[in-house]
Amino acid sequence: MKYTKGGVTAAKGFKAAGIHAGIKENSPIEKFDVGLLVSDSPCVTACVYTQNKVKGAPIEITKLHLEKSGGMSRGVIVNSGNANTCNADGKEKAEEMCSIAAAALGINPDEMIVASTGVIGQKISIEPVKRVINTLKENLSFEGGNNFTKAIMTTDTTEKEYAVTFEAGGKTCTIGGTSKGSGMIAPNMATNLNFLTSDTAISKEMLKKALSETVKITYNCLVIDGDTSTNDMAAVMCNGLAGNTLIETENEDYNQFKEALTEVMRRLTIMLAKDGEGATKLLTVNVSGSPDIDTAVEIAKTVVGSSLLKCAVFGSDANWGRVLCAMGYSKAEFDPNTVDVDFRSKKGIITLCKNGTGVNFSEEKATEILSETEIDIDITLNNGNAKASAYGCDLTYDYVKINGDYRS
Amino acid sequence: MKYTKGGVTAAKGFKAAGIHAGIKENSPIEKFDVGLLVSDSPCVTACVYTQNKVKGAPIEITKLHLEKSGGMSRGVIVNSGNANTCNADGKEKAEEMCSIAAAALGINPDEMIVASTGVIGQKISIEPVKRVINTLKENLSFEGGNNFTKAIMTTDTTEKEYAVTFEAGGKTCTIGGTSKGSGMIAPNMATNLNFLTSDTAISKEMLKKALSETVKITYNCLVIDGDTSTNDMAAVMCNGLAGNTLIETENEDYNQFKEALTEVMRRLTIMLAKDGEGATKLLTVNVSGSPDIDTAVEIAKTVVGSSLLKCAVFGSDANWGRVLCAMGYSKAEFDPNTVDVDFRSKKGIITLCKNGTGVNFSEEKATEILSETEIDIDITLNNGNAKASAYGCDLTYDYVKINGDYRS
Repeated sequence: MKYTKGGVTAAKGFKAAGIHAGIKENSPIEKFDVGLLVSDSPCVTACVYTQNKVKGAPIEITKLHLEKSGGMSRGVIVNSGNANTCNADGKEKAEEMCSIAAAALGINPDEMIVASTGVIGQKISIEPVKRVINTLKENLSFEGGNNFTKAIMTTDTTEKEYAVTFEAGGKTCTIGGTSKGSGMIAPNMATNLNFLTSDTAISKEMLKKALSETVKITYNCLVIDGDTSTNDMAAVMCNGLAGNTLIETENEDYNQFKEALTEVMRRLTIMLAKDGEGATKLLTVNVSGSPDIDTAVEIAKTVVGSSLLKCAVFGSDANWGRVLCAMGYSKAEFDPNTVDVDFRSKKGIITLCKNGTGVNFSEEKATEILSETEIDIDITLNNGNAKASAYGCDLTYDYVKINGDYRS
Repeated sequence: MKYTKGGVTAAKGFKAAGIHAGIKENSPIEKFDVGLLVSDSPCVTACVYTQNKVKGAPIEITKLHLEKSGGMSRGVIVNSGNANTCNADGKEKAEEMCSIAAAALGINPDEMIVASTGVIGQKISIEPVKRVINTLKENLSFEGGNNFTKAIMTTDTTEKEYAVTFEAGGKTCTIGGTSKGSGMIAPNMATNLNFLTSDTAISKEMLKKALSETVKITYNCLVIDGDTSTNDMAAVMCNGLAGNTLIETENEDYNQFKEALTEVMRRLTIMLAKDGEGATKLLTVNVSGSPDIDTAVEIAKTVVGSSLLKCAVFGSDANWGRVLCAMGYSKAEFDPNTVDVDFRSKKGIITLCKNGTGVNFSEEKATEILSETEIDIDITLNNGNAKASAYGCDLTYDYVKINGDYRS
């Protein structure tokens, strides 16, 4: 497996574009807010959606389309600036967005995936989409992935794209992806909008399996603020243009595919964490010595989501008691008396707790370690061999600022 | 039932005191950090504790004592400045604190309740307690409740005390209480330190029942930051000095007692919410039209705990979509399509959502309403008659500031 340039158009046969349409009134002309992604040939598609009971209309329509098309898709239309959620006419509008895009592309509307992100509960006008659809279609290109990424960003401050290549049966396959999201992010969902494309030939069943296994240890291990959005989605589209032998079983090619998918999704997860709203530091919590993965995931996610710990990381305060406290209110079962906790960054590593009890440590060294922008908290349960990591960020003044005045 | 002055010493036969002992090095001389509460006669006692799996040593010792004494107690010794949690010698120290106090008071150490609050994982020195215990004992008075309250405060900025009187079988009974806590506060526990005293004569079984029923709709409906502390406790001590006929069944006297207990605990809960770390606004979420209380509680607590909503309230932004979003990721089952949402303050009331869909509203009016310091969010599920409220506050720059540098 090797890193390669690009994102959602890195794999063979995927074109994309992004444009300013003016979904949100008075949004700056340079802000792209509608994106289009299309594959030269039909794609086996797997999707996971938010577990929020209040679901955005685009989620409902995408589900419906994938059911109707038997899990096949050709294109994606997305907008930022309005989530099209809690609107009386939301489904009609989401359906219409698909029809507009499908007509321009000359495909069936049921082959379209649709996603929206932005404020909840304001009627969306799709006149802007109608206005720009032809230009958007003309702009579609194999280098357009980055413009698509720009179109899905809201409070994001960085573009999140990643791609890798790997070999399957002597053929080079590519997986690329893009993600958006920096607030309203919490466990147990497909964290905001994530689009992954690949030219790998793979069956629906194997693709679905690979996505669900990978989401669990990547996107679902991301916590920014504990708020699970209504519009989260991760879609993987595979058009098979790499020409590899179809992956239909859990063979070596499947393992290569899954490893590559995990790498792309893990990298995107870290990019999302790093760009959490108001974040100044990436916080990674690694739990090892666990009896099973689920225990490790539950503890890692609970710790990385603790508001108190996130504030301490912001303030470079080695307040490890908050780590133990968060572990204790997680749903996982563990013995507090065998827990070790280290804080780590590129400035070094320091042990703060052994067997559930504080040890003497140099405050000066701890502050030095915590002053870095990428902090790891290593927790050992000393009760097994399973491990997992969760990704988040510090809680800062700017998070409050951004979210105290998001709509305007 | 009537409001009466005072707190933990409002009921007959309870004396208290607070003092500066210097539990935390360099703490200012004016900060009380050790408190003592004692009843003239033995008290039937009910206690609920944190559900955090990492429990403070004082919690373990208090549990043990109440087991040994058959649910009877005489006194409480508390300290702030150190939680005595995750310390190798924590239990010995907690036990010793009880022995020191019991010796001074001439009672059995098993009749002592002990509680500590402050930083986790730093060894506690109880030399300061030894040093002050005699002075503390001499200072015990029927007016000392407020000094006891001062001794348990940490980042609290206000003293939380409340008391009521009620009639039971022709006798006037009193219930008074004090609470502390403004951070590390989350559902499903006996939110930080809460001490309630009463001169009511009541059986252990009835007291336990009243406490558990009342905690569920008061302290457990309080959410500041979603962090469940290791040291939370609510203790109710009843010495029977009011001379009422012993309450042994769910009779009218029991109902009076429970109503009075609920009133004191609800008032203290609201005081806790209002003094949430960094809070500028009290946020109350009222859910009605619910099929049952559990559904109403779950929704109210999830909404009041949403970081995004808390930021919106801070910024006076009527972003009601975040209310629906939080409802959706709660564990409760409900139909989003029948939900109504109003925002309310003493400036008026405004409907933002009817049947799960946004309605047109005046932004100006909404901002005026949200600019107040006490905000109510009224949610109607339109699916039953049960209701519940949850209490919290806004999320502000100061929360981050306080918690970025708590230990020093």
